[in-house]
Amino acid sequence: MDRKTNSPVTVIGLGLMGRALAGAFLKAGHPTTVWNRTVSKADQLVAEGARLAPTVGDALKASPLAIICVTDYQAMRELFDTSDIEPDGPMLINLTSGDSTQAREAARWAQQRGARYLDGAIMAIPSAIGTTEAVILHSGPQADFEAHKSTLDALGTVAYLGADHGLASLYDVAGLAMMWSVLNAWLQGTALLRTAGVDAATYAPFAQQIAAGVAGWLPGYAEQIDSGSFPAEVSALETDARAMAHLIEESEAVGVNAELPKLIKAMADRSIAAGHGGEQYPVLIEEFGKPRND
Amino acid sequence: MDRKTNSPVTVIGLGLMGRALAGAFLKAGHPTTVWNRTVSKADQLVAEGARLAPTVGDALKASPLAIICVTDYQAMRELFDTSDIEPDGPMLINLTSGDSTQAREAARWAQQRGARYLDGAIMAIPSAIGTTEAVILHSGPQADFEAHKSTLDALGTVAYLGADHGLASLYDVAGLAMMWSVLNAWLQGTALLRTAGVDAATYAPFAQQIAAGVAGWLPGYAEQIDSGSFPAEVSALETDARAMAHLIEESEAVGVNAELPKLIKAMADRSIAAGHGGEQYPVLIEEFGKPRND
Ligand SMILES: NC(=O)c1ccc[n+]([C@@H]2O[C@H](COP(=O)([O-])OP(=O)(O)OC[C@H]3O[C@@H](n4cnc5c(N)ncnc54)[C@H](OP(=O)(O)O)[C@@H]3O)[C@@H](O)[C@H]2O)c1
Ligand SMILES: NC(=O)c1ccc[n+]([C@@H]2O[C@H](COP(=O)([O-])OP(=O)(O)OC[C@H]3O[C@@H](n4cnc5c(N)ncnc54)[C@H](OP(=O)(O)O)[C@@H]3O)[C@@H](O)[C@H]2O)c1
Repeated sequence: MDRKTNSPVTVIGLGLMGRALAGAFLKAGHPTTVWNRTVSKADQLVAEGARLAPTVGDALKASPLAIICVTDYQAMRELFDTSDIEPDGPMLINLTSGDSTQAREAARWAQQRGARYLDGAIMAIPSAIGTTEAVILHSGPQADFEAHKSTLDALGTVAYLGADHGLASLYDVAGLAMMWSVLNAWLQGTALLRTAGVDAATYAPFAQQIAAGVAGWLPGYAEQIDSGSFPAEVSALETDARAMAHLIEESEAVGVNAELPKLIKAMADRSIAAGHGGEQYPVLIEEFGKPRND
Repeated sequence: MDRKTNSPVTVIGLGLMGRALAGAFLKAGHPTTVWNRTVSKADQLVAEGARLAPTVGDALKASPLAIICVTDYQAMRELFDTSDIEPDGPMLINLTSGDSTQAREAARWAQQRGARYLDGAIMAIPSAIGTTEAVILHSGPQADFEAHKSTLDALGTVAYLGADHGLASLYDVAGLAMMWSVLNAWLQGTALLRTAGVDAATYAPFAQQIAAGVAGWLPGYAEQIDSGSFPAEVSALETDARAMAHLIEESEAVGVNAELPKLIKAMADRSIAAGHGGEQYPVLIEEFGKPRND
């Protein structure tokens, strides 16, 4: 077993996602050890060649790398509280969903036990695991990520974000916010166009083009944020705000929901009230960067 | 002047945008007649070869096509109330911003005067006019659009949307809603990542990739809306809602604004309360399609 692509791996937690992860490792030729609280969920994987470990401790001894994917961080803690982590145990990669605080706490908890730990987040559904479409984010010590990257590659497109264990969770929710926002804006437009008898399939390519086009502006706009200077090179926020009023009026006039348009305008209006009407859109970072106190 | 690319054109209204439009026609070699209430705004264009018409009526007589671009529909009405539109006058294309109701009213108003009328919307800033980046939407009788498309091509990427004069305005605000939503989601993510010391330039390519990727789903998702059936092929709305709770918690925990995350979740929660938790995200079209009554 000295071929790197065949490095052994352990998967702990065999829910919908854990089974997909273990299945992808098996398919890529990795000797795969599995453990799950409810033993029967391992049956299919064992039939495909996985080895079922009788205890978590045994599962951890079986491989230099152990992936954990359970419901939440609480479940992960419970799992290990009943079983010792050996100081020279495997590299732990926790792909359980959680927030950045939980990830950083888990990293400290692992460190106290002498365990190496990476935190991760899966931006994919189980059926996409093993394809390039599945994006899997990792954060923690870079050397630990690099040491196991060739094994992790079996899962999809794996990315390393930085040493702060909280980064995987932060990028994950940030990416999801983008996903829901694109979908919601598309639904807003679809609802508007349906009032004129335009079907969703007719409108979708237009929405797709705008979203992809605006996405292309982000790296340039990011420079304004990093420099803290927002000259209105393209248009001033107060010009945007006038068009936002059109969006609200149009939505209300044709009888579709106006909550998203109103939120868009409310944030711009606050920034204008704070004196930024003559600056460019990214100046809104100041509103997004602080909690709303009312 | 029988070369089609050199067809004469009139531009009425020489604000920031009207001057850009007239300039693009001149640059493309069209004999260009201009008129503006404040005459001095024509000076530069006249120096570049435009002909200044003494009255709106004279401007209309000069070309088979007249573009109108003034502040709002009210201004357009005032313009013509003091000057007769001849029944055999030019094709009018109104590129003034407004809503779909105003566009349809203006079409009826033009029809009563025996004038041919297209409504349009400019999705660009003045400096982009004359480049392919400038998208200019048109709606109204298709034959009228086709008859003048080769002249309009001087302005940028011109698109025809349909016979309903309200379509240009509807697509315009729908596209703007997409633009602000992509920007806002990116700002939300940028604010989250900044709490971990990640600068905007580092995060932007990730946001860009997610936005463009999700944009690619829209045509497929549109089929669910048009068929009125939302099987959870990718994931169920209630799974999304759990991740939305993470986004809110994460935003609040690190001290950034949570209004956008909360709106995202509120709309999903209402759809789940209406019994759609097991269906896929586009089922939210039902929430977007109706006003919020409270
Ligand atoms: N499914 C997706 O589409 C998806 C996508 C991205 C991320 N994720 C994340 O991946 C993780 C797992 O999701 P899933 O879909 O696999 O969930 P799931 O099907 O509900 O499975 C949950 C797993 O956690 C185990 N578990 C829960 N509490 C436990 C405890 N106290 N001790 C030991 N084991 C415990 C369960 O064991 P039993 O079988 O014994 O109950 C099961 O293996 C979650 O954090 C989820 O957010 C999922
Ligand atoms: N600028 C942009 O980035 C942009 C982008 C997309 C769409 N648009 C739309 O394009 C239209 C024009 O915008 P703009 O930027 O050119 O505005 P602007 O610079 O403020 O110019 C307004 C124009 O309207 C004229 N006008 C206003 N009221 C009038 C009246 N009662 N009678 C006759 N003329 C009148 C003004 O004439 P005077 O010179 O005599 O005042 C001027 O020519 C607006 O609907 C705007 O929303 C603009």
